[in-house]
Amino acid sequence: MGDSQPRVSSHLGYFGSGGDRYNLGGYKKAVAPLDRLRAVAQVKGLDGVELNYPALVAEETVDQVKSVLAETGLQVSNVSLNLWGDAKWGHGSLSSPDPATRAEALSTMKRGMAVAKAVGSPLVSLWPGQDGFDYSFEMDYGAAIDWFIEGMQQAAAQDPDMRICLEYKAKEPRMRLLVDTAARTMWLIHKIGAPNVGVMLDVGHAFQAGENPAQSAVLLQREGLLDIIHFNDNYGDWDGDMIPGTVRFWENLELVFWLRRLGYAKWCSIDISAPRGDPVKACQQSVDNIRRFYRLVDVLPSEEILANLRRTDHTANLRAISDRIFAGLGI
Amino acid sequence: MGDSQPRVSSHLGYFGSGGDRYNLGGYKKAVAPLDRLRAVAQVKGLDGVELNYPALVAEETVDQVKSVLAETGLQVSNVSLNLWGDAKWGHGSLSSPDPATRAEALSTMKRGMAVAKAVGSPLVSLWPGQDGFDYSFEMDYGAAIDWFIEGMQQAAAQDPDMRICLEYKAKEPRMRLLVDTAARTMWLIHKIGAPNVGVMLDVGHAFQAGENPAQSAVLLQREGLLDIIHFNDNYGDWDGDMIPGTVRFWENLELVFWLRRLGYAKWCSIDISAPRGDPVKACQQSVDNIRRFYRLVDVLPSEEILANLRRTDHTANLRAISDRIFAGLGI
Amino acid sequence: MGDSQPRVSSHLGYFGSGGDRYNLGGYKKAVAPLDRLRAVAQVKGLDGVELNYPALVAEETVDQVKSVLAETGLQVSNVSLNLWGDAKWGHGSLSSPDPATRAEALSTMKRGMAVAKAVGSPLVSLWPGQDGFDYSFEMDYGAAIDWFIEGMQQAAAQDPDMRICLEYKAKEPRMRLLVDTAARTMWLIHKIGAPNVGVMLDVGHAFQAGENPAQSAVLLQREGLLDIIHFNDNYGDWDGDMIPGTVRFWENLELVFWLRRLGYAKWCSIDISAPRGDPVKACQQSVDNIRRFYRLVDVLPSEEILANLRRTDHTANLRAISDRIFAGLGI
Amino acid sequence: MGDSQPRVSSHLGYFGSGGDRYNLGGYKKAVAPLDRLRAVAQVKGLDGVELNYPALVAEETVDQVKSVLAETGLQVSNVSLNLWGDAKWGHGSLSSPDPATRAEALSTMKRGMAVAKAVGSPLVSLWPGQDGFDYSFEMDYGAAIDWFIEGMQQAAAQDPDMRICLEYKAKEPRMRLLVDTAARTMWLIHKIGAPNVGVMLDVGHAFQAGENPAQSAVLLQREGLLDIIHFNDNYGDWDGDMIPGTVRFWENLELVFWLRRLGYAKWCSIDISAPRGDPVKACQQSVDNIRRFYRLVDVLPSEEILANLRRTDHTANLRAISDRIFAGLGI
Repeated sequence: MGDSQPRVSSHLGYFGSGGDRYNLGGYKKAVAPLDRLRAVAQVKGLDGVELNYPALVAEETVDQVKSVLAETGLQVSNVSLNLWGDAKWGHGSLSSPDPATRAEALSTMKRGMAVAKAVGSPLVSLWPGQDGFDYSFEMDYGAAIDWFIEGMQQAAAQDPDMRICLEYKAKEPRMRLLVDTAARTMWLIHKIGAPNVGVMLDVGHAFQAGENPAQSAVLLQREGLLDIIHFNDNYGDWDGDMIPGTVRFWENLELVFWLRRLGYAKWCSIDISAPRGDPVKACQQSVDNIRRFYRLVDVLPSEEILANLRRTDHTANLRAISDRIFAGLGI
Repeated sequence: MGDSQPRVSSHLGYFGSGGDRYNLGGYKKAVAPLDRLRAVAQVKGLDGVELNYPALVAEETVDQVKSVLAETGLQVSNVSLNLWGDAKWGHGSLSSPDPATRAEALSTMKRGMAVAKAVGSPLVSLWPGQDGFDYSFEMDYGAAIDWFIEGMQQAAAQDPDMRICLEYKAKEPRMRLLVDTAARTMWLIHKIGAPNVGVMLDVGHAFQAGENPAQSAVLLQREGLLDIIHFNDNYGDWDGDMIPGTVRFWENLELVFWLRRLGYAKWCSIDISAPRGDPVKACQQSVDNIRRFYRLVDVLPSEEILANLRRTDHTANLRAISDRIFAGLGI
Repeated sequence: MGDSQPRVSSHLGYFGSGGDRYNLGGYKKAVAPLDRLRAVAQVKGLDGVELNYPALVAEETVDQVKSVLAETGLQVSNVSLNLWGDAKWGHGSLSSPDPATRAEALSTMKRGMAVAKAVGSPLVSLWPGQDGFDYSFEMDYGAAIDWFIEGMQQAAAQDPDMRICLEYKAKEPRMRLLVDTAARTMWLIHKIGAPNVGVMLDVGHAFQAGENPAQSAVLLQREGLLDIIHFNDNYGDWDGDMIPGTVRFWENLELVFWLRRLGYAKWCSIDISAPRGDPVKACQQSVDNIRRFYRLVDVLPSEEILANLRRTDHTANLRAISDRIFAGLGI
Repeated sequence: MGDSQPRVSSHLGYFGSGGDRYNLGGYKKAVAPLDRLRAVAQVKGLDGVELNYPALVAEETVDQVKSVLAETGLQVSNVSLNLWGDAKWGHGSLSSPDPATRAEALSTMKRGMAVAKAVGSPLVSLWPGQDGFDYSFEMDYGAAIDWFIEGMQQAAAQDPDMRICLEYKAKEPRMRLLVDTAARTMWLIHKIGAPNVGVMLDVGHAFQAGENPAQSAVLLQREGLLDIIHFNDNYGDWDGDMIPGTVRFWENLELVFWLRRLGYAKWCSIDISAPRGDPVKACQQSVDNIRRFYRLVDVLPSEEILANLRRTDHTANLRAISDRIFAGLGI
């Protein structure tokens, strides 16, 4: 692997039971938190992991987790603050109309930020997955956005050295989520006004929102807001959390093209689902596919591609890139 | 309420915890099976319930269930055969490549059919929710459809007096489901060739599949295949299982218009989700909305509407129907 | 009609032939520009029209148009600047990689703004419908957004008394458009930094983008950016430009609820398509439906609805509002 | 190229002006009918063309067309019967409520079939692109399907030696089309009951309908109904008519895998749109991509893939196929 290769980490949620709303018991036995670290450490080419506060690391397990990390050689790409996986967040976290819930959400974030610091991570991520609505006449849209902004301002002020990135998603589990697109998040960050708030770009969420992930990455990176990327794939109609590059091959390739072009040097993380398969194998395939896209970009004629963009000759780019993809087959 | 009013029943799944893949523990305490019957019996205008084999009724609980049904006065609209809510169905039920799984699926259906008979229901329903695929190169499409057809033939032959209806759905929990649309199910029934197989039309599944539910109902009813209807609603982009009539008002109204026109006299059942609300209130609202649509249809100018269809004057129909919807408001 | 009633205007595009990519000749004879004004003036309850520069009004026709406007009593809600309906904009207007095209786009905008002033309109609208891409590797995303922002800055600086509103749309005719969502437009306006740039909210574009239009309206209005609204309707999967309220009844109602609540006092304009129907009748139905939604909102229990939002009791709101919708039917 | 290579033909619609509903004049000069044949003949690896009755070939131009075909060496894969591109079909063709329109549609089909025979094509195709609806309460669903079936029966009876294939599409230009999915078409063909009616599978229409095109092809081919394939690509949310393989790489590959497996030996035709590019180059790229997918399938480990399907080990297939895709790149 050449110098262009990224640092790759992985979420560990798919080492769980894989349960869903029709089968809460799941399709396999969940792996215990520390064992997830040991299991994923078998994957070749994986450099780091995402932790989840408080599910995978909490105040009382910091030392244990650090010890297993040292044992495996895995770094921590980020700590995900869990404000979704409990009944108490059912009507939202930072944007809940209930002041006590908002306070608890903020307090959970602050504790998670401290734990992140303790495990040596400079980045926490927040996916506000319960902050949204299902029906018309269910949310006071203005109040909700104000509460969300205010909560983020307070969290960001807690520790200016800790970067907080927001992971947007258009829907699920709510029919509509508050922080739904790259553009919404960019606008929100402008309103929040704190220097240590950025974005986690989840490729599958971008597809589900109708975005081109390369475009989202470019616009975020130019603003200094692209903190980490979640790789996965889907058909565009739902957040399938599939192995990267197995559906939207070209858009994945284009994303990596622009990441290279813009000098993105942060983590490429894997956020897939594997309820009916072996999570280690699914992770390995994901790592390999991401690294192969980087390698493929190495052999693309970058200057020619950029020149074709300026000449509005997209057919020439389809030609140049198709030729490379199929090159090794002599066809 | 006039003679035109339908018999209304309800699924009882939404009396569970409301858990989803992000929060397997759910948003509230699940109500125990028999208590679900007692709870839903509070709903005014509800005539029946759907049971679920083996989750809500099984061989050993038939007597108990019958006793509570008698106590509440609720009838059984159908018994849903559960071939999805367990890890063993993860790679499909009747269409699984594993012969032992297919045999177990068939055997479960047969036992469920016997239990349905024991509780006095002439109808079982099957939603093959795990029979599908996520990725390319995951399913042998021809073999899967053959296995599914063969299993249905055997189930149907088990008891010619028991009607089996298939509930189609385009996706979820798999990215793509085998029995995905009204048309697919009609074609499958033709291939199955048994006289006692029909269709459960789920309005929300129709929306998710891009169908107009009135059209699906008409085409099914004309073939004698429309066995029962699941009412719910959504935005068209996912199976939100929302309260009927709260999103796609017009298409719900049109569905009821055609049901009346075609003399549909079977059950209108409620299949909603209410993870963050009171299931009794959500059921009551659903019953009321369905009954109101029937009442609204009573005052629509049917012959004028049909004449406008023949004259391709859809604007005249929009006029006539809008006038009625808003009529009572004096506007 | 009470004081709450809005000022209603209409786009005039649907008085054309109704042609599409499969039938460029259209489905009926296009009405000539000035005749469109006279035709639409028959519609009861219509207060104004949108003009289109240069298709419906240009430098040389200002006097004629003013004369017909005076004759009909119609006001001008806005002048739409046409940077899409000609081959020269095929690769974009303000964001084209070609400097000459960008210059021509800017110049067209400036001329259109002068014409708008001449016909007495304080508002021009720009739908950048050709600024986008179809394929991966077709657009230099960073350059395109910079060019677009720069063009808008120059246009806005041309006449600080002329308001320019951007009409976002997620796709069509390009597979992906640059100015795609309410949030994107809000962020862009922040980058443009001119005080006289705002937003045209097209309800159908909001649906197509997966937005709740009430939410978009609230967030825009709070920022002082909601300049005009295009009413129409669709199924959420495409920009069908259907008559308002004929598909997504509840979300239309909710939009009007919040417009009333926030004191929105600008134009409600109609932007529908009617290729196979009479445009005058389609306009009349649209006007009536918008005005009826306003009237229906008049009888909704606003304070109770807002209180339920605070208590996260959406079922209570569904109850209260359903009761009102069906009230006149005694059901 | 090996023996496995398909016969490739092309639609010629994209040699037109590329106009759409916003720009009826199009983005370039339309090429005249006979010149389209000469232009496309430049494409290497193209074996045939689709003709369009009456737009590209009609009674009076049969001889001329045959002469140019002979001159270019192009064969005719099929003749498309145009029942959509004229105002008279605006409310449908075979399913129109107007008896005169239905009669004219049938008569046009019959004349087109005779012309197809005269140019030596054993296959006509019908895309019923105007047979559908936009609004609720616009179509008498039962009557429409009866009329459609009756029309097809009469057309099929006209010449038992002429094969008629139906091209399904879920929507556009109508919001909902009558012949919308592979399964609907299979069911319709069962109802039509004629031995000479089959299906044209358009890959992009399959994507738009939420289908996996490989699955659709397999189910059609097993029934003897797969008459011809239209290759193109899109994001799943609209019929973008993009160059094959530039979005959904894997599903295109899987389609070709199964075509090979099932011995499909009919035409692979190209149905793309190229309003802003050179149609000859776009066709060349499409031909090359289709032929490369066939070549790539040649080197896939077929037996291993099929064995993995039986073992429900989709991760092993993702591994095997990814390894092949990237193999030639040494990565």
